[in-house]
Amino acid sequence: MIKTDILIIGAGPTGLFTVFEAGLLKLKTHLIDALPQPGGQCSEIYPKKPIYDIPAFPEILAGDLVSNLMEQIRPFKPGFTLGERAETLEKLDDGSFIVTTNKGTQHHAPVVAIAGGLGSFEPRKPPIPNIADFEDKGVSYFIKDPEVYRDKKVVIAGGGDSALDWAIYLADVASEVALVHRRAEFRGALDSVERVSELAKLGRIEMITNAEVVGLRGEDNLEQVVIRHKDKARGEEFRDVDDFIPLFGLSPKLGPIGSWGLEIERNAIKVDNSYDYQTNIPGVYAIGDVNTYKGKLKLILSGFHEAAIMCQSAYQRIYPDKKYVLKYTTVGGVEGFDGTKKEAKKEVVQSIGV
Amino acid sequence: MIKTDILIIGAGPTGLFTVFEAGLLKLKTHLIDALPQPGGQCSEIYPKKPIYDIPAFPEILAGDLVSNLMEQIRPFKPGFTLGERAETLEKLDDGSFIVTTNKGTQHHAPVVAIAGGLGSFEPRKPPIPNIADFEDKGVSYFIKDPEVYRDKKVVIAGGGDSALDWAIYLADVASEVALVHRRAEFRGALDSVERVSELAKLGRIEMITNAEVVGLRGEDNLEQVVIRHKDKARGEEFRDVDDFIPLFGLSPKLGPIGSWGLEIERNAIKVDNSYDYQTNIPGVYAIGDVNTYKGKLKLILSGFHEAAIMCQSAYQRIYPDKKYVLKYTTVGGVEGFDGTKKEAKKEVVQSIGV
Repeated sequence: MIKTDILIIGAGPTGLFTVFEAGLLKLKTHLIDALPQPGGQCSEIYPKKPIYDIPAFPEILAGDLVSNLMEQIRPFKPGFTLGERAETLEKLDDGSFIVTTNKGTQHHAPVVAIAGGLGSFEPRKPPIPNIADFEDKGVSYFIKDPEVYRDKKVVIAGGGDSALDWAIYLADVASEVALVHRRAEFRGALDSVERVSELAKLGRIEMITNAEVVGLRGEDNLEQVVIRHKDKARGEEFRDVDDFIPLFGLSPKLGPIGSWGLEIERNAIKVDNSYDYQTNIPGVYAIGDVNTYKGKLKLILSGFHEAAIMCQSAYQRIYPDKKYVLKYTTVGGVEGFDGTKKEAKKEVVQSIGV
Repeated sequence: MIKTDILIIGAGPTGLFTVFEAGLLKLKTHLIDALPQPGGQCSEIYPKKPIYDIPAFPEILAGDLVSNLMEQIRPFKPGFTLGERAETLEKLDDGSFIVTTNKGTQHHAPVVAIAGGLGSFEPRKPPIPNIADFEDKGVSYFIKDPEVYRDKKVVIAGGGDSALDWAIYLADVASEVALVHRRAEFRGALDSVERVSELAKLGRIEMITNAEVVGLRGEDNLEQVVIRHKDKARGEEFRDVDDFIPLFGLSPKLGPIGSWGLEIERNAIKVDNSYDYQTNIPGVYAIGDVNTYKGKLKLILSGFHEAAIMCQSAYQRIYPDKKYVLKYTTVGGVEGFDGTKKEAKKEVVQSIGV
């Protein structure tokens, strides 16, 4: 059984910064995340993408944001249970909690902070009745390694940037690429649309617009897709393929947390934003993109604020008899659990002494 | 008359970041600050001091925090009225406001955001009846240029870091340094206390503890201080001095804002933290260290969050009929008022396409 003061569910930016705010209060933390590395979406989905609205960073790559946070919390030595999904929450008689993951790892803490972001990201699947039968047998919703499609016949479905960008990329890899989209217009970046049109003219991509993939066929592996044209005169078309890649984006799912008895509103957890971001279960807080309240903004900077406020309340819950007085790191420095201490050099303090 | 969408009072970190959040909503901003440069306390009081609790900065100097924010808001071309103090607030019939500075500069805006920090910093003065008579005639509350005290007889009063550090520093500069403190213990950094003790042993600093300066004497300039010992047997002592420097810290004063009809609680402005950080005067918001609410933390990161939330509400006030949908800079980039546009390079977007 892993024991800690604040058990943080979700190791995205908000979860990571919670370690820092808790650490300033000498509270220990442990993080659980379904992903195999810390950073949440920032690491998993867009590590190389710049973010412009983190205060005091005119521009920062999502991956660097995560590295910086990891560096900032290092002195507080958080524990991590990675690659496991928090599955159940059990409240003990003394008011503390046990959280068990899908792999059976148990965690015990007086306070649980859910920093689950938008939840786990799952691909939006097209409504083709037997699509599950062909998953990993010709159907995939992500492209992890484009080399898998070398010299294969591929059908991509979708009208956004992912579909366009991968069609362009695979035109050089696959033996045959068809792009099926139910409209004639694409909602991707202009230059991607132009590039796809060029490749179509060169015969390297086949554009099948105003059409949808409505069926899949095959003995064991996928062999054919059924394409239905809006133009009734054209009807349905059967096309031999090795791979079908529907790219309709990702849809976040709250997952098992949704059945913990928390008050849920539009796929997010309701919290008391007038005080401490606590949920309807005392001792369980929800911070960052996973929570909702009147005027909520799903911004990383809001998660940071919510984490700071939440830790103060957690401290009072854990130590009801101690009165904590906020100390400023500028004045008192930062003392880590690894014995490190950061503070302004004496001469610096002296020069600003007033 | 200067016209803008959001008039921001206070150009500290929170005020500066408000420019960014307003800019994302295409709202124009103008800042007023009594200090001659942007950055508030960070620039004025501790530019070279490191801060450790800004998210994703394991360490940043206060001055660099300000430079980064200035760079981040540059595309939104805010206006500045610097070196002037916002003096009066007048509400017009149409619900908009005119704010006039102590120098008579007038500003007109539908929304006012008070980001005044702790207010203007003023030194805590000891309760010596005639102290004002000797200000700049031997009495000073700040040390701007220590060379002023070269070869002078100096008495410093206080028991904190400033008093200790300046006593140590002036021991090398002044002809005579006495440190008067009403207790025997000092609350400064341990090594400063030790250093002062050493200098006292060497006769370079005279420590006068359990005593207070209670009187000042002089024809025109300061000539003597009256030191009263707690030990009644020792009574009062008259000491010849050139300079008396009471260093009892700074006390923030809300200033003229305090008489604008805002609801004030413990030197801070009460706001509705359950929604938009609006004050009791509709259209006037208070964000950052200047506001108060249940659970308030006076942290820069909280000011950033409050600024983001507040700008959304201001947008609805200014454009009641438009519905704004939050856009993420990661997806849509940042478009500045100077024609600049920041966004992820196409190839970056492509590589993360899913």
